[in-house]
Formats: sequence, structure tokens, C-alpha cells
Amino acid sequence: MKFVLIPDSFKGTLSSTRICELLAEKAREILPGCTTVPIPVADGGEGSVDCFLNALGGEKIPETVTGPFFENVQAFYGSIDDGRTAVIEMAACAGLPLAEGRLDPERTTTYGVGELILRAADRGARRIILGLGGSCTNDGGCGAAAAVGVRFRNAAGDRFVPVGGTLAEIVSVDVSHLAPQLRDVEIVAMCDIDNPMYGEKGAAYVFAPQKGADPAAVRRLDDGLRHLCAIVQRDLGVSLSEVPGAGAAGAMGAGMVAFFGAKLQMGIETVLDTTEFDRVIRDADVIFTGEGKLDSQSLRGKVVIGVARRAKRQGKPVVAIVGGVEPEGEAAYAEGVTAAFSINRLPEDFAVSRGKSEANLSATAESIFRLIRATSGAYGA
Amino acid sequence: MKFVLIPDSFKGTLSSTRICELLAEKAREILPGCTTVPIPVADGGEGSVDCFLNALGGEKIPETVTGPFFENVQAFYGSIDDGRTAVIEMAACAGLPLAEGRLDPERTTTYGVGELILRAADRGARRIILGLGGSCTNDGGCGAAAAVGVRFRNAAGDRFVPVGGTLAEIVSVDVSHLAPQLRDVEIVAMCDIDNPMYGEKGAAYVFAPQKGADPAAVRRLDDGLRHLCAIVQRDLGVSLSEVPGAGAAGAMGAGMVAFFGAKLQMGIETVLDTTEFDRVIRDADVIFTGEGKLDSQSLRGKVVIGVARRAKRQGKPVVAIVGGVEPEGEAAYAEGVTAAFSINRLPEDFAVSRGKSEANLSATAESIFRLIRATSGAYGA
Repeated sequence: MKFVLIPDSFKGTLSSTRICELLAEKAREILPGCTTVPIPVADGGEGSVDCFLNALGGEKIPETVTGPFFENVQAFYGSIDDGRTAVIEMAACAGLPLAEGRLDPERTTTYGVGELILRAADRGARRIILGLGGSCTNDGGCGAAAAVGVRFRNAAGDRFVPVGGTLAEIVSVDVSHLAPQLRDVEIVAMCDIDNPMYGEKGAAYVFAPQKGADPAAVRRLDDGLRHLCAIVQRDLGVSLSEVPGAGAAGAMGAGMVAFFGAKLQMGIETVLDTTEFDRVIRDADVIFTGEGKLDSQSLRGKVVIGVARRAKRQGKPVVAIVGGVEPEGEAAYAEGVTAAFSINRLPEDFAVSRGKSEANLSATAESIFRLIRATSGAYGA
Repeated sequence: MKFVLIPDSFKGTLSSTRICELLAEKAREILPGCTTVPIPVADGGEGSVDCFLNALGGEKIPETVTGPFFENVQAFYGSIDDGRTAVIEMAACAGLPLAEGRLDPERTTTYGVGELILRAADRGARRIILGLGGSCTNDGGCGAAAAVGVRFRNAAGDRFVPVGGTLAEIVSVDVSHLAPQLRDVEIVAMCDIDNPMYGEKGAAYVFAPQKGADPAAVRRLDDGLRHLCAIVQRDLGVSLSEVPGAGAAGAMGAGMVAFFGAKLQMGIETVLDTTEFDRVIRDADVIFTGEGKLDSQSLRGKVVIGVARRAKRQGKPVVAIVGGVEPEGEAAYAEGVTAAFSINRLPEDFAVSRGKSEANLSATAESIFRLIRATSGAYGA
């Protein structure tokens, strides 16, 4: 039998990679000789490169680039598909842990992200997947843009690299000097949120507080993003104000669209495309997916539903192993989910059960594989 | 497909009969055309007769007999197997609800139970199943014995019907006048506990307090049972002191052994035998069982394990749907349980989840049947 394992992480308890390991272990224990194909799902944040490398193989390329405070940092990207595709997680050079103890989204930059993009393109990548997530920045991607040749000028006519606190100083933007090696490169920016660039649900108001901004700073950052949006509209003719996801990662989503011509895409769709999921499942017997909670939110394009919709087209059974199922989550059956099992082995509050997630998930998976073995006739009853 | 449904009750939340209904409903919804065989498991207490009638068909025979305070009560028994077998639950005429407001195990009698046994035998029953459980008595079965002709005498030489408070007055017991119609009747007393007749773990100390006995009364009741045990040993040559289960239902277990020659048996074994479980599962695809909690206790002959051991001999898959699975409960796999799923759809404490037991059980069953449908190839994916 062949099982494809493509779970989302259980936020706060189990990574997608770990879930894949636990499922594969139980599958092999119960059905020796079975094939398991683990596809840990990257969410764009820290660990996204490893997810792709685990799923597809490839190489982790170390690179020294500019860190969030314009210092040098040791970062990396993933080279897959014989170097034709690069996977970058912006957290590698603009992530929250790098700013620990000195969080300040008015001063931090995404410059290093632009450098990583450039290095990957220099090495021949024709497609770049950029994970948006876990950033300590709020620069609207201007830093990354400056690193690849986009020119921002201030009132004095000087070129500068805008950060969150100086977005309002931008007087003009010019993309005509963009690094030529990026011209034929397709860039996909993965983001799992649909927040707009600015406003009440925008990058500054929703995410800047956890990056160290006080209420006054949040207002300044939001004003700066509004200003950037207006400049981009005027100078580049690109309208960012209504783009869902533009607010991701300190409005890095907006910058990727405006300066890099990137496509913003849900993480799961990127993973499904990149791993050639449709081809991989063609001879699969059961597909295992999951997420922290299967609820009405799940139906809005999250991992389980994304997986189920593809599987349904080929009539493949999809088993969701989840941290919890709300009654509304059962609408997932109509989208292609065959069965949904929660890992809660006992009636226990999350405060108690969260420490048992690994054991609970393994025990639940064991029963599912045992049931499949017994009823599929794979190995007799 | 054919599914046999044989769950224990989830104590305090779902009866075995209700679980059978919920499972059958989901089975028919997901796999139209499937056959379901419900075998709700009687535990000996209130509802046991209905369980057997639901599983096997038959007739409920109303009978007016003696109640716990020697008043008349409207009771009943079940006639199955074309009248050859009778099922009696002692709670019908000696149950706790009948003594509500006037609980007193020193005064109550099992006399009516003897009458029910006699009526069933009069009507031709050759096998009588007696459910021990839910009683308001502590008379060691002397009341029931007196009703079928067993003679108890006091120091004055007078015949009397001992109750809990007068066991110590018994000077002799004589079974030679036992109703002749009982001679060839096989009596099986179902009990799910293994408490001895008397002592610290005996009927009085463990169960009399919930029947209204204060500590002084408990001591008197226990002394009375010790005395009865000695009399029975001397006059009938029957040793009751070490019999597991003799303490069931106010030591009714002891009386059934001593005066009726009954066999004490775990409820599940009685149900499995009476329903001809081995024959019923011969063409079954999956057997569903369950209980409130699958734990180390479960391995000691409770319902899930009883079912699993029989099913294992025929290599039939057994799915346990339970209120919770402790890690030790997974030893059940070695006994024939294929898979164990808990009904907890969310990480919630029992205080929260108990009110959702029906919905949670149905939702869990739905996923299991959906998975079986998809992987068995019964209806394609």
C-alpha cells in the first residue's frame, strides 16, 4: 500500500515534519512493506525550507547576507529540482528570533531577503518560492527591493533604503534598474493570511505589536504603509490597497507584488504544485492530512481542504487526523475528506492534552492503520 | 456488509441500547443496504431485560409480585427463545427506585425475585437468566429462597422470611421443600463484580451505604451475612466465603449459589452465549463494541475484551468506540481489538464533553464507517 502524508502543523504542539515522521513510523509498524511519501507542509515561516527539502530532497545553500539591523547574518536557502527552483524563508535573515531583545519594526529591514533572491537567481533558479512569515520587519518589502536594484529617493533626491520608520520619506520609486537576472524568474510568495496592506486589519495594526511596536509606533507604521501604497500606485501603476495577503510579514506581500511581480499564493497550493501532488497520489491508496483544528475556518483554503479538493478529483480517500473537529468541520466531507479523527484519546482539556500530542497522535494513527489493514484485506484480518 | 453492534453502556452518559441505535443509524446512512445486528449488553441492572429483548426479540411478561417492603408491585420478566429462556432483572421487584424515600437494607426483601423465577418456570422456562444489580436489599437472597420453598427457622422453631436485619436470627435452613418445577431449570446469575459475600470488600461494607445503611447498620448487616454463610456451610455443605461475586446485589449472588444452584457469570459471557454470538458473527464484516473507558480494568473480562476474544477466534475485525483510551488500554490489541477510537472530538474535560456524548459518538462512528467504505472497496472510494 502507498500512503501520502501531507499534514499541516498543529500550531504550538507538533510540526508538520514531526507528524509525518510519527505517521510513517506507525504505517511501517502496522503495514510492513508499505510505502510512505511524507510531504511536510511549509507555512512560509521558520522551517519552510526544511519542509520542502524533506519532501523533495535538494540542498541547503548557506549564504551570508544582511540581517534585520543591517548587520551580517548567516542565512540559507533551499535548492530543489536540480537547482531550477529555490525556496527561501524570509525568517532566515529577517526573522523575529534575529531581533530578540531589540525588537523594533521601525528600524528593521528585509534587505537580506532581496540578497537571497539575487543569489538564488545567480545560481540559476528559474522559480523562487519565498515563505512570508515570522518576520521582525514592517518595511513593505522596500529593503528587499532596494537589494535587487529598486531605487527609492527622498525629498533631497538621495537614494536610500527605507525601513518601517522611514517609509513616509519616500518621494519616488523607480524599478527600471532591477537586477536583469530576475527578469525571467517566477516568484511565488507563500502566505497563509489574507490581511490587507494597511488599515485596521493591515500589517501594522495586526502584526506590528508582536514585533515590538507600541500604539504610537503602530500608527506611524500604518501611515508609512499608506504612503508607500500611494507612491507605488503613482510611480508603478500598481494598486496594492485591495490585495489580500499584501499585509503579510510586515507588508512584504505588498512589496513582492509591486517590486518583484510575485504571485501571492496560499502555502498549501504552493506545496501541492511544487511537489506535483496530483502525480504523486495517482497510485496512492490513502492520503493522510490534518491540522490543529478542523472547523469552519478550515473550509477557507487551509491545508486539509486544499489536499482534499485535489484528492477528490482522483477519487482518493483522505483521512484527516486533527487536534479537534468542530461540528462545522464536518462540511469537509463534501470537499473530499473521507474521515476525520481527533487525537484526543481521553476527555481532557487542552491544558492537559497538549503535553501528550505525540503519544495521542501515534495512538490514533495506529488504530487507523490497523483498521485499514483489517478492512482493506491488505494483510487479511 | 454486515456489522454486529455489541457495546457496553458508557456509564452515566449513554446506554448500550442507545449506542446500538446511534451506530446502526450511521451505518445505514454511510453504507445503505448494510445489515446491522444490535446486541445491547445487559449489565444485570435495570434495563437488562430490554437489552435481551432488543437483541433477540421475545415478550415482556408482566407479573404482580412482592416488592421490597412485602407490598405488591407490578414487575415483569422477559421470555425469549420461544419461552425456553426467561430473563429476570431483580431490580424489577427489589430495585433501588422502588425504595426511594425509605431506603433501609435491614428491612427489604428479594421475595419477589423468587416469585418471578417460579412464574417463569411455571410457564415452561428451562433456563433462567437473572440480572443481579441495582438492588435495595441485603438479605443474601433469603427472601427469594423463601419464595421458592426454602425453609428458614428461628430459635423458636418458627419459619420466617429473613431480611437483612434478621439474618442473625436464622437457626437452620432446609432446602428439601424447594419447588419441584425448579429442579431441572438452569439458572445463570449475571454479575459484573467479584466482591465476596462479607468482609471489608463484601456486600454490606461496599454497597449497603448507598442503600441507606449507616455505619452501625453496615456492621450488623455484615455480621448477618457471616452468620448466614456459617449456617449454609453447616446445613447445606456449601461454602460461600470465597466465591467471587457472592457479594453482588446484597449478597444475592451467595443466595443464588446456595439455594438455587445457580452459576455466577460475567454479564458479557451470558450475553455472548445467549445471543449465540459465535454464530452471529460468522458472516459479519466488522464487529463494533465499546465502553466508557478502555483501560487496564478492561482487560479483566469486561465487555470489549469479552467480545474481542470471541471475535479473534474467527479472525473478525473488532472496532472499539470508547469514551476514552488509556495507554494501558492498548493491550487490548493483543486480545483481538483491531482499533480503538475515542469519541472526544475536541480537547475538552469530561465536565464539558459529557453533554455531547451522543453527537460525539455519532460523529466518530460516521468517520469510521466512511473510512471502511473507502478502504474496503465496498462502494468504491
